[in-house]
Amino acid sequence: MINELSALRLIEERFHKASNGVELGIGDDAAAVQFDADKLVLATTDSQVEDVHFVKSKLSPSELARKAVAVSVSDVGAMGGVPRFILASIGFSQREDEEYLEKLISGFISSLEEFKVELIGGNLSSSNKLFLDITALGEVEPNLMVKRKGANPGDLIFVSGDLGDSALGLKILQNKEIGDGYEFLINRHLCPLPRLALGRELAVKQLVTSMIDISDGILLDLERITVSQGVGARVELVQIPTSKEYGECIRQYSDDYYEPALSGGEDYELLFTTPPDRQADIQEISKNLNLKITKIGYVTKDNKLQVLNKNGEETSFKQRGFVHFNN
Amino acid sequence: MINELSALRLIEERFHKASNGVELGIGDDAAAVQFDADKLVLATTDSQVEDVHFVKSKLSPSELARKAVAVSVSDVGAMGGVPRFILASIGFSQREDEEYLEKLISGFISSLEEFKVELIGGNLSSSNKLFLDITALGEVEPNLMVKRKGANPGDLIFVSGDLGDSALGLKILQNKEIGDGYEFLINRHLCPLPRLALGRELAVKQLVTSMIDISDGILLDLERITVSQGVGARVELVQIPTSKEYGECIRQYSDDYYEPALSGGEDYELLFTTPPDRQADIQEISKNLNLKITKIGYVTKDNKLQVLNKNGEETSFKQRGFVHFNN
Repeated sequence: MINELSALRLIEERFHKASNGVELGIGDDAAAVQFDADKLVLATTDSQVEDVHFVKSKLSPSELARKAVAVSVSDVGAMGGVPRFILASIGFSQREDEEYLEKLISGFISSLEEFKVELIGGNLSSSNKLFLDITALGEVEPNLMVKRKGANPGDLIFVSGDLGDSALGLKILQNKEIGDGYEFLINRHLCPLPRLALGRELAVKQLVTSMIDISDGILLDLERITVSQGVGARVELVQIPTSKEYGECIRQYSDDYYEPALSGGEDYELLFTTPPDRQADIQEISKNLNLKITKIGYVTKDNKLQVLNKNGEETSFKQRGFVHFNN
Repeated sequence: MINELSALRLIEERFHKASNGVELGIGDDAAAVQFDADKLVLATTDSQVEDVHFVKSKLSPSELARKAVAVSVSDVGAMGGVPRFILASIGFSQREDEEYLEKLISGFISSLEEFKVELIGGNLSSSNKLFLDITALGEVEPNLMVKRKGANPGDLIFVSGDLGDSALGLKILQNKEIGDGYEFLINRHLCPLPRLALGRELAVKQLVTSMIDISDGILLDLERITVSQGVGARVELVQIPTSKEYGECIRQYSDDYYEPALSGGEDYELLFTTPPDRQADIQEISKNLNLKITKIGYVTKDNKLQVLNKNGEETSFKQRGFVHFNN
């Protein structure tokens, strides 16, 4: 059993240090922070709601805290920016035990270190279902900011990492006793890796015309940077990158090999468009960051999304996924 | 019945204009905003959770949206700052009808105009209980920022407006068929008035050594700017300002005349400390803004809170209220 007062004490004990750029942190009406004068402030918010985004029995409180932070900072990275500060709004039941909250806080602390951000405030509320709402503030130079809009016909379309591991990991968590050999996929669901270094590198080197982090499946997010912006995309199904583990497991869960990879969501890989003469630079970044980056197609003039199968025929897919008004 | 996609469409239809200071608004991975280079960015977040902070049958969706925004911008005002931008995270049930969400959005729009802030992003989630989590971003000159810490022994303690109306209004909403004559108190609960102009004026004229908006009852919030900061306070019960309507109604709800005024919460009046030689300036501001400002006591060296009754005897009160780690 824990109330707001003891939760507050816990939080104050654990977040006491002030630091660079924070004029005033937790504990006043608002936090006061200083951003670089020549940069834009990036702001984004994301929620994790019990029994909607997660089931408490399936991930630990520290994984939950880390994931909530990861998902929010990922959006800052997808703008080419650097995340700096976090506000955490937590709704939790009075029935919650103190140990759970303590682990949640520990998860926050280590994720702040991992993503090099600072917790500057937040809010504790009662709520019958646990929820975490994380606002991330970051910064970016105005001329380096990468929007969803900007792809030009002829630009190449790239995606980082592998797709569908998280969606498949979720299916395993939901449908099956966890056996050996699935840890990789499950972990990709529980511990997403926002591609902050890649997003920043692509922006600093001005290699991309549009970028988004894939939170709702590549089909939906590809549409957001092409069809929604007045251009189109042509991608080849066989180029969609999937992991060895995905290949070994997919047949147990779906007749459609590509379904989780195309519309499963929660990949948090970066999807971006690059002028064709910069392809070599992308390969170099891939090598330097030791991160797979795959060319999956190109931007077209036609205002539609075309997905070609291995025979070069156009295929159609049901689009799914979670929709945000600013993610 | 409404899903995220149709909710998103509604929101995009209603929030399309870009404006001053917003480089990139709703619709990308993050919003990008420009703050004045010489100012600090203030950041605060606050939640309204169904059946915790509100009951859906007791306030309209537009009142709910307005209140959520009001509560968040109030914190920026209590720092002496000017609120500029809002991120709104909304959790709502798929069972919600579209009309409810449309009214919620209308409430947001009119509150943005009322408080002169801009919606730059947010998030939509499913949630079995409705919740609104509002992050407000504002700005303040570093030398004008008013913290909770700063009161000196001998400073006078002032409070704006009347206290307890909101708490009493809530009791009326909860306990009784609404009859005539209670609209004022109920309205004070449903439509709080953040004292943005007062907070800013006090900061600009550098009249205050500490300030807080009263969200959790004056006793708890007074403690936050005195006892928690190493000083004390001595206040006179008879000076606690209450409205005519409060006086007419309180006996039906409480044997203790002052209880809702002292610890009821959700007043959103400003509580602040002022050097004694600036009392005349406070009176002038009160006159200019046509807003009651009452001296209720003074700051002491003793690290405790003393409340004196009409006979000058110290009285004790149970402290209640909702606790935030950064409100």
